[in-house]
Amino acid sequence: MELTLKVQGMSCGHCKQAVQGALKELDGVAAVEVNLDTGHVDVTFDEDTVAKEEMEEAIEEQGYDVVN
Amino acid sequence: MELTLKVQGMSCGHCKQAVQGALKELDGVAAVEVNLDTGHVDVTFDEDTVAKEEMEEAIEEQGYDVVN
Repeated sequence: MELTLKVQGMSCGHCKQAVQGALKELDGVAAVEVNLDTGHVDVTFDEDTVAKEEMEEAIEEQGYDVVN
Repeated sequence: MELTLKVQGMSCGHCKQAVQGALKELDGVAAVEVNLDTGHVDVTFDEDTVAKEEMEEAIEEQGYDVVN
């Protein structure tokens, strides 16, 4: 399944790495693509293994806000 | 000795950590203070041990520009 999360506060390559790294550590996340300009984070994941809420939490733990 | 380097491109806390970390790794650097708003990096160092050029190089290796 694919999902686009809208994330606020990512300003540079380090931020991108932080968000990507946190998501990729989650079981069930297959691929992550961050667009710094738009703040969009495209995630490919197995919906039977990981929930949207867990991914949002992982991003927020890195210090960024997820917009709904 | 104290010196203020003017650095461009630091946008977030990760950038601050990258610059501070790179400078603190240098022998002779005693203290580093980064101000993200101004881009000013205040360095306290032993001028017999480390040169300004080495500090500038360490910052540039992290991907930031030092302005003179």
